[in-house]
Amino acid sequence: MSGNEIVTDVVVIGAGPCGLFAVFELGLLDLKCHVIDILDRPGGQCAELYPEKPIYDIPGFPVITGQGLTDNLLAQIAPFSPEFHYSRMVNGLERLEDGSFRLETDAGEVFLAKVVVIAAGGGSFQPKRPPVADIEAYEGKSVFYSVRKMDDFRDQDIVIVGGGDSALDWTLNLQPIARSLTLVHRRDAFRAAPDSVNKMKALVADGKISLLIGQIAGLEGPDGNLERIHFATDAGDVSVPATRLMPFFGLTMKLGPVADWGLELNDNLIVVDTEKFETSVPGIFAIGDINTYPGKLKLILSGFHEAALMAQRAKKIISPDERVIFQYTTSSTKLQKKLGVA
Amino acid sequence: MSGNEIVTDVVVIGAGPCGLFAVFELGLLDLKCHVIDILDRPGGQCAELYPEKPIYDIPGFPVITGQGLTDNLLAQIAPFSPEFHYSRMVNGLERLEDGSFRLETDAGEVFLAKVVVIAAGGGSFQPKRPPVADIEAYEGKSVFYSVRKMDDFRDQDIVIVGGGDSALDWTLNLQPIARSLTLVHRRDAFRAAPDSVNKMKALVADGKISLLIGQIAGLEGPDGNLERIHFATDAGDVSVPATRLMPFFGLTMKLGPVADWGLELNDNLIVVDTEKFETSVPGIFAIGDINTYPGKLKLILSGFHEAALMAQRAKKIISPDERVIFQYTTSSTKLQKKLGVA
Repeated sequence: MSGNEIVTDVVVIGAGPCGLFAVFELGLLDLKCHVIDILDRPGGQCAELYPEKPIYDIPGFPVITGQGLTDNLLAQIAPFSPEFHYSRMVNGLERLEDGSFRLETDAGEVFLAKVVVIAAGGGSFQPKRPPVADIEAYEGKSVFYSVRKMDDFRDQDIVIVGGGDSALDWTLNLQPIARSLTLVHRRDAFRAAPDSVNKMKALVADGKISLLIGQIAGLEGPDGNLERIHFATDAGDVSVPATRLMPFFGLTMKLGPVADWGLELNDNLIVVDTEKFETSVPGIFAIGDINTYPGKLKLILSGFHEAALMAQRAKKIISPDERVIFQYTTSSTKLQKKLGVA
Repeated sequence: MSGNEIVTDVVVIGAGPCGLFAVFELGLLDLKCHVIDILDRPGGQCAELYPEKPIYDIPGFPVITGQGLTDNLLAQIAPFSPEFHYSRMVNGLERLEDGSFRLETDAGEVFLAKVVVIAAGGGSFQPKRPPVADIEAYEGKSVFYSVRKMDDFRDQDIVIVGGGDSALDWTLNLQPIARSLTLVHRRDAFRAAPDSVNKMKALVADGKISLLIGQIAGLEGPDGNLERIHFATDAGDVSVPATRLMPFFGLTMKLGPVADWGLELNDNLIVVDTEKFETSVPGIFAIGDINTYPGKLKLILSGFHEAALMAQRAKKIISPDERVIFQYTTSSTKLQKKLGVA
């Protein structure tokens, strides 16, 4: 084992509502979780696709937004101090001889865990590629869909394309360290939060960044090293010197590397039992929208139930000799102490 | 069919959290529910055993009381206008030839329903009998554990025994119609809401009711017709003329008539599948603490999941020819119209 491995009881893949609630149920049983998500924040589809859209079918909430539910769940699991790793994809999963697991992310971290919980919703959210020739050759060198290390962007000529929150947030965050920064959007209207839009416009007015209304048309530069980007605008073709491009064209959902882990699948969903929500590989569980079983409904409330039953089995795997007495938060002082309320 | 039969899609037995949420899931599918509960209010164990005690494991609520959860669920199901029948026990359930059901309560109502959902928690809450000789002979004639008809108490000499909310609530409610009313408690301290206690003390001060500190010791009167009750007090034996007695000695839980309906049981729990949460009798479902299946945990959140899957099957039974497309409240205008928010 190298010193860079993160050793934990459970790795939860996916920080949507079901992944978050899994941390709660596992935490009640004293199991420590690391949570990995491909997005740069918790909430999964809820926070990404409909953060402000009301949901009406979470039991006990006549109405709640995706963001509201996410915030509540984060508060609920805070006593268990889960560790979050965002903007990462688990692309390697290996079962070791002792039945535990070695996971590797696309950012190079290695996790050693006794149990893996896949709560990846519809799969991996993956950035949509802009329709530009040869963009693949630039990806990872000059074209990035998320920021792993701010330093990769320091003193660079940065072009950001998009009109949503991600585009505006990164415009504001990268401007101070960029050599130059150009925000490009197809029209002069932005979906992002009004406050971010105002801040961006102030930077434009101060001459600190440029705003260009147009559409990306071509990339220029040898061996994946971007030098210049061409745009189609109402005034004709325009080109901008650029060493970094961040396109924010939205996200698409793919099952992703999960498909390669040898789990029994049915129509791109992971087959589980209804007693433990365990996959065909012992020690790997799947909860929420990514699993399938007779009667399955893709409801958040079902993922919560699946998390609770999964946790009981995970505890038995991790502490096979411990006798676990099922307890209620309403009556158990022991559980209340874990939650910090007794 | 007599005109007194109540015809409905679904009878839900039990108005605890799972029974209430079943109304929601069935309502989304346009199914109309009547809900019957042995208690005199909604909430089941939550509201009866720990109304003000915090619960920490309802997903999305870092903390909520049993009463708070009940109130939220009532608000959530209000758009579906369920009809509630409290203080009633379903003591007869018969499957008719066409596969629908005839239910009869101990208050004499008859329900005709296509589907029955048993959400009765630990079973029926039943009043504890005070330790007095021959009290059975008086029950139903002079001794009552709940009020079905106020008129049974009009112009009577009423004795109420207990110090909790039920004892105090009925003291305040029955006083205006009683010929006399005596509240008896073993000590001069009351668990009931302070406001009720204050109102009761004001009635005592005004001479409108009597308060006696003591313990019930014996009943007197021929053929179940109560005439006088004896109490042991610090000052010795005391007797009070009485034609009605309401003892509030708490509740005990029994499976009750459910045991006689021919459903497959396991250790006093109703066996269900995990696809539809249907019992061994087609058309009768069991959700929440009263059911059992591999992996079962007696968690409220599991009952919510069970309600959702049950509702899909109930819909198929009631509308076999209707093609049901599974929809989300977040995106379906049709569902939002049912909820009164679109």
